[in-house]
Amino acid sequence: MRLSQFHLHTTKETPSDAELTSHRLMLRAGMIRKLASGLYIWSPLGLRVLRKVERIVREEMDRAGAVEMQIPTLQPRELWDATGRWEKFGNQLLKIKDRKEQEFCYSPTAEEAITEFARQELSSYKQLPVNFYQVQTKFRDEIRPRFGVMRAREFLMKDAYSFHLHDEDLVREYENMKAAYTRIFTRLGLEFRMVQADSGAIGGDASQEFHVIADSGEDALVFSTGSDYAANMEAAVAAEPSARPLPAETLRKVETPTQKTCEAVAGLLGIELQRTVKSIALMTDAGFALALVRGDHDVNEIKLAKAPGLAGNRFASEAEIVEHLGSVPGFLGPVGPAKAIRVVADPEVAAMADFVVGANEAGFHLAGVNWGRDLPEAEVADIRNVREGERARDGGELKIARGIEVGHVFQLGRSYAQALNATVLDENGKAATLSMGCYGIGISRIVAAAIEQNHDDAGIIWPDAMAPWQVVVCVINPKGDTGVSAAASELLEALRAGGLDAALDDRGLRPGAMFADMELIGIPHRVVVSERGLAAGTFEYRSRSASEAESLDRDSLMRKLLG
Amino acid sequence: MRLSQFHLHTTKETPSDAELTSHRLMLRAGMIRKLASGLYIWSPLGLRVLRKVERIVREEMDRAGAVEMQIPTLQPRELWDATGRWEKFGNQLLKIKDRKEQEFCYSPTAEEAITEFARQELSSYKQLPVNFYQVQTKFRDEIRPRFGVMRAREFLMKDAYSFHLHDEDLVREYENMKAAYTRIFTRLGLEFRMVQADSGAIGGDASQEFHVIADSGEDALVFSTGSDYAANMEAAVAAEPSARPLPAETLRKVETPTQKTCEAVAGLLGIELQRTVKSIALMTDAGFALALVRGDHDVNEIKLAKAPGLAGNRFASEAEIVEHLGSVPGFLGPVGPAKAIRVVADPEVAAMADFVVGANEAGFHLAGVNWGRDLPEAEVADIRNVREGERARDGGELKIARGIEVGHVFQLGRSYAQALNATVLDENGKAATLSMGCYGIGISRIVAAAIEQNHDDAGIIWPDAMAPWQVVVCVINPKGDTGVSAAASELLEALRAGGLDAALDDRGLRPGAMFADMELIGIPHRVVVSERGLAAGTFEYRSRSASEAESLDRDSLMRKLLG
Repeated sequence: MRLSQFHLHTTKETPSDAELTSHRLMLRAGMIRKLASGLYIWSPLGLRVLRKVERIVREEMDRAGAVEMQIPTLQPRELWDATGRWEKFGNQLLKIKDRKEQEFCYSPTAEEAITEFARQELSSYKQLPVNFYQVQTKFRDEIRPRFGVMRAREFLMKDAYSFHLHDEDLVREYENMKAAYTRIFTRLGLEFRMVQADSGAIGGDASQEFHVIADSGEDALVFSTGSDYAANMEAAVAAEPSARPLPAETLRKVETPTQKTCEAVAGLLGIELQRTVKSIALMTDAGFALALVRGDHDVNEIKLAKAPGLAGNRFASEAEIVEHLGSVPGFLGPVGPAKAIRVVADPEVAAMADFVVGANEAGFHLAGVNWGRDLPEAEVADIRNVREGERARDGGELKIARGIEVGHVFQLGRSYAQALNATVLDENGKAATLSMGCYGIGISRIVAAAIEQNHDDAGIIWPDAMAPWQVVVCVINPKGDTGVSAAASELLEALRAGGLDAALDDRGLRPGAMFADMELIGIPHRVVVSERGLAAGTFEYRSRSASEAESLDRDSLMRKLLG
Repeated sequence: MRLSQFHLHTTKETPSDAELTSHRLMLRAGMIRKLASGLYIWSPLGLRVLRKVERIVREEMDRAGAVEMQIPTLQPRELWDATGRWEKFGNQLLKIKDRKEQEFCYSPTAEEAITEFARQELSSYKQLPVNFYQVQTKFRDEIRPRFGVMRAREFLMKDAYSFHLHDEDLVREYENMKAAYTRIFTRLGLEFRMVQADSGAIGGDASQEFHVIADSGEDALVFSTGSDYAANMEAAVAAEPSARPLPAETLRKVETPTQKTCEAVAGLLGIELQRTVKSIALMTDAGFALALVRGDHDVNEIKLAKAPGLAGNRFASEAEIVEHLGSVPGFLGPVGPAKAIRVVADPEVAAMADFVVGANEAGFHLAGVNWGRDLPEAEVADIRNVREGERARDGGELKIARGIEVGHVFQLGRSYAQALNATVLDENGKAATLSMGCYGIGISRIVAAAIEQNHDDAGIIWPDAMAPWQVVVCVINPKGDTGVSAAASELLEALRAGGLDAALDDRGLRPGAMFADMELIGIPHRVVVSERGLAAGTFEYRSRSASEAESLDRDSLMRKLLG
């Protein structure tokens, strides 16, 4: 590839609406252009990177025994009604009417359509296991599309769906997919982690996410120093608390005239924050409830929504609080409410003695509170975020890093097949509902995530496997001296013959502008061919991640590049 | 690839709604499954074929110097309003509202979006010429989707758009694309023709179509035996008529009481049909008009719509006919109408003397009619279909064949760039509107067209380049004898090492069922490995297009397959 024949178009300006580094750099490098909110054109440069990711994903899916097929982007409403997701998916689902007023959606994922395909295609257990995948444009009508292709509305995704007779077959394929994903992200050259996600209906290991590690990541990931334990914040657990101490204090009411937060109360009383308990008033599907976490802890809303009896919760209004607790916010607590209420305590709270809570009376808190003596034992559920430095269940220490979710594997079980009536005849000739796994990778998102992880002030730093070209041979003054051009062309061919994806920058830019472009677009290896170098028998080589260029003779250069 | 690990699923039934051979065979072979009207799932088998076409298209586009990029499938209304196509495209354009009530369409083609990209990307003539292409899912909301993927609503298309400063650059790239298309269809192994289509605003050669020749084709293609002249029916022209003879007869009114067609009048008068003239009464944007073709000729509606003054025409109502001609249908003619009318005659009619037309009086025709004497000279325009056997302009004879349109190249000129204000600075630093070409290939349609051209009673007959696998090694009783399986595996690897896309049918089917599958799915080369054959040192080989199998030793087999 000669760059004079390629459409490369970098810019210096940084658009004002680009908040994220990867978004800014992709625009400056000319990889993407905005067509409308959340809709991006992939330029020739951007598409080269996207295709490299796509190819590695495809190769590893094939190697893992999955078979590629393709489902239409538009899918009929009936299928989505059958699973209830036409409504459940909410406004992210782009709904479309055709000229005959038939309703369709632009597929954001394809469980329904693939299950319908399986229903038509699979009739016997002998056809199982099978894992169908596609690389397909998807659409999610994000309420606030942003961050460029990191959260675009139209995006490229690899989605795979496996079908099984027995749950153990599903577990086996799930492990197979985890191994394939690990190979994919390893080959891409990215620092990544597989973390436990929200555990599903089937078992402990039913859902895991793959994250690219990056400081700018939206998700907090929790690791243990004691093992390979890793989970996202919604799924992360700390060690069980120590046994509850015996009560040592008597219950007493303390005056806290203006102290409405745990911090203020602890300050006034001169005690540690972790001796206080935060009370969160909720309205749930089953009525009013009080959720308790330690004063120094934060509630996790996903965990809260999954705790028994707290489904569909929202914060209670002041009127609801007054009705059930007889108090105003700032002084709430689980002791002596106006009406009988449900109390759900985090395990750490359930293990406390002699703690401080609101007194359900404006201007007062209770100290020396003890379970079983001053109030009934509560229901216990893990409803909080773990924190950096806590003890892990494996005895190690919990660490927190930021990640960008780029893959997700999930044991779905039989719910889709049940809703869509997808069965096969089993070994005994009886109809059996199919068990199903699904496995997604956000291909376009990986491009942005890789940049978030790998960049510097000058631009992108691609891992070799994702780079638009692994090496670019830069020609100084290509029109001035045919010797330089000929030597560069010869070198290009030698590098390509060695299996490298190499290009020639023969655009005739000034060296400074040419080098700046190559750094901005993240070329891992740059070779400069100049008249002066040729005279000395050397080429200038620079790795994108090195601070200095080095002068190499041809043999050394080839050894360095071809290994 | 081992077919036991692949999802192959053929069926014997022919669905009742599949009218076309390719549709039936693709369903029976299990290449596609219907998800909804005009929406098809591509199974693993179908996708293999689709990807082979896609790869050849991509390779030849790259070789021709076009650069690949990708445009979103959804495009904002504003762009389509700017060119007027939001309305003009009609109901084929699938219109979509997002959650914020913003309007989009699902792209049926991408002139607007690519011109917007060019407007953002191209600022100088130095960046030209450039040819951007994409392989992308498109959508056309056909009123009656049918014929499977031949006329699906969602389909895969390669669309390319070139940008130029000067028209001669456009012409050069247009020729470059024609050459690339010729290479593509040649490599695909299809019998095809490039034909002249409707000539555009720029010049004579401004639009050409590529057709796969097939008896079931929807389009009539016209060829000359005298040169490589070829055109579709809308663009085809015959030789100019001979000079008009001098009048020999006097004008006379003849009684034709019940004769309302040219055939009936010619029969009654005992004259040749080509002595009569058909009068077609039209309402146009500019009022009433009469179009004249010879009695043995048919009007071509596309030509009629393009004739000067006949834009927006429709057949006149009986009331309109009575008002302008003073007569009822069946007896119409251009002589002595009730009101002054416009008359447009086909060149063949304009060259007639002593002809017969309706008398504008019920029950009567006029014979011996002559131009200039009995009625004013008419406007002349080619408004008819040519017919098989006519003389061509090159002196040859016109032949007609049926074709399926699979490619279209078009010199668009500057209209899109004008509407969207896409300019670059020219050599003199002045803003110049971009000139543009567009080049489409219907990738999914090619798959169906290839089957229309290449099939027999047993199924599909793929050209090697499009086949899901070029060769399949069929194992007789794979579980019974490990020697057979081992020999087949070894042969498979040898064929793959030789560069063939080969698969192993190790599904363990009975030979008859296995061979029927391989014929149905159109595998070009079949090799059978059996215990008996191994004992004799031979393999059974059969070409899909041969009527008999042959017994070959290994060397002969390899020579035959690897050449």
